[in-house]
Amino acid sequence: MRVEAVTTREIVASALERVGVAPEAAAIQARWLVEGELRGHPSHGIQRLPVLVERVRKGLLDAGAEPRLEWGGEATLLVDGDGGLGPAVATRALAALEPRARRLGVAVAAVRNSGHLGLLSPYVESVAAGGLVGIALTTSEALVHPFGGARALIGTNPIAVGIPTPGEPFALDMATGEISMGKVLAYAQRGQELEPGWAIDGTGQATRDPAAVAAIAPFGGVKGYGLGLAFELLVGILSGTAFGTDVLGTLDTEHPVTKGDLFICLAPERFGVGPETMERLGAYLEELRGSAVASEPVAVPGDRARARRRRALAEGIELPDELVARLRELCPAAEALS
Amino acid sequence: MRVEAVTTREIVASALERVGVAPEAAAIQARWLVEGELRGHPSHGIQRLPVLVERVRKGLLDAGAEPRLEWGGEATLLVDGDGGLGPAVATRALAALEPRARRLGVAVAAVRNSGHLGLLSPYVESVAAGGLVGIALTTSEALVHPFGGARALIGTNPIAVGIPTPGEPFALDMATGEISMGKVLAYAQRGQELEPGWAIDGTGQATRDPAAVAAIAPFGGVKGYGLGLAFELLVGILSGTAFGTDVLGTLDTEHPVTKGDLFICLAPERFGVGPETMERLGAYLEELRGSAVASEPVAVPGDRARARRRRALAEGIELPDELVARLRELCPAAEALS
Repeated sequence: MRVEAVTTREIVASALERVGVAPEAAAIQARWLVEGELRGHPSHGIQRLPVLVERVRKGLLDAGAEPRLEWGGEATLLVDGDGGLGPAVATRALAALEPRARRLGVAVAAVRNSGHLGLLSPYVESVAAGGLVGIALTTSEALVHPFGGARALIGTNPIAVGIPTPGEPFALDMATGEISMGKVLAYAQRGQELEPGWAIDGTGQATRDPAAVAAIAPFGGVKGYGLGLAFELLVGILSGTAFGTDVLGTLDTEHPVTKGDLFICLAPERFGVGPETMERLGAYLEELRGSAVASEPVAVPGDRARARRRRALAEGIELPDELVARLRELCPAAEALS
Repeated sequence: MRVEAVTTREIVASALERVGVAPEAAAIQARWLVEGELRGHPSHGIQRLPVLVERVRKGLLDAGAEPRLEWGGEATLLVDGDGGLGPAVATRALAALEPRARRLGVAVAAVRNSGHLGLLSPYVESVAAGGLVGIALTTSEALVHPFGGARALIGTNPIAVGIPTPGEPFALDMATGEISMGKVLAYAQRGQELEPGWAIDGTGQATRDPAAVAAIAPFGGVKGYGLGLAFELLVGILSGTAFGTDVLGTLDTEHPVTKGDLFICLAPERFGVGPETMERLGAYLEELRGSAVASEPVAVPGDRARARRRRALAEGIELPDELVARLRELCPAAEALS
């Protein structure tokens, strides 16, 4: 079924409010789930709502969370999310972080005890739209094997980087696994073989059978392994959260959340960046876009997600019927969907 | 010929002093070139000395450089290297940056007008040995094509990350190209074909002929492209240096240097990191090392370079005869090599 983004956002928010989530936090969380749909990442979209609702019902997420923000150093913000919804806690953290970065040139927030962040790109895009550079990192359940390793010990640990440009922001958002577990499941449903090098089985051997997958390969071989591990350590050490298989509670409805998040904001004006640098940066990105082998332009990170988002805002979001049925169970307002 | 690290360091330093480089800067630069050899990266080793000497002679590097350090914000250090040797300028920058990071929790230095940094890992290892997290980025000549792009527009832009652990530091140091141009040259010399997907030719088509290579692929496909480009933009915008094909002067003996460097230091103590977190981190790294498919342990970034370094310190560095001959031309003290 094709639905409008605005309507969907209201329905998702009211489903969260029905289980006790404060209106502001519910609205922010709803916005993030709808962003997942708008940008073409349904794995980070509305399908997460039933899990979130269940986590709130079980007390694994605190509907009335009061995040605690404390400056550990003048430029380092320590955030205890009090078990609140990830996007709501992160939005609070960034609101405190951005003015500090503008004053000092750089500021960093380390977040613990906070729910799944959802898509990272909207955070860094919003930071970049305000003229700052934003970097976001978060840890996740161990699904990726080390390079040369026999089992899953590293999260798919995504990174997002937002950089202001003379046009729309540069916005990279990527996981450090070769593929997502969602993709493995999709291949399994279609009875399709995985590509070589994507995954290993329970004995540590390469497998192309989606049903046999015990761990996903790091993207980009030994280099991607190194980066994904660096992110795991950076987030874990600075937020005091879990490492490896101790990271739990972002996907399930059983475990308290033990992952961490890290946000870095940098203020170009405190590095002396002037209009001349920004112009050169804009010209460089245009040169990249025009350097394609094929007729389609080279994509600068952010370009394609924005194009999808614009189309989805105009044409509506396509939701599977089962998901619409689940929405109707979670919220009477969803009857309005037609 | 097998030579001792200490002797080699002295000879390299005196070769630099002979063209007017101040003793302290010469000693630091010599240490970095020898580190390249010790860690098994001869491309960043003594073979760079003739280029450096030639650049000094031509005034492309300033033997008497006086780097200027200025705080653009309380946590952001703007460094103009005054055309000095990269490792000497970076060492000055880090010496100013580290105490600031300890006080504020994080501090960032953006460096311009400074020579090639050489290996990045020694910088971040040294930062991590002092109990701080260190991140180093630098731009380089455009050798990498964008994902889907037909020509070289992005540097091999390496990143290094150093993180203190209960044992020796985690130290990642990796370029964002699939391979180095040095590797292409080595394949050409041996008359060997490149692996598929490593490079493109002048028409933008995939090639396995090393002699036809016009651009190297980004590592890890579209994700590695995104990261390498993010690093290009981050360094360029914050240091006000060049982008893409305007980045020059790190490898040649003709162009003034236009690349930039970025150093980020974070102080775990300002994030509330205690011994419990460090213990968990150490246990996690041991778990990784023990997770191998084969009999050899999984390597944590830093492990292998350190092992090579220890062996080379004990057994000496192997230098090709031609390089020893060049050293003898550049410095009479090199006669001592036997």
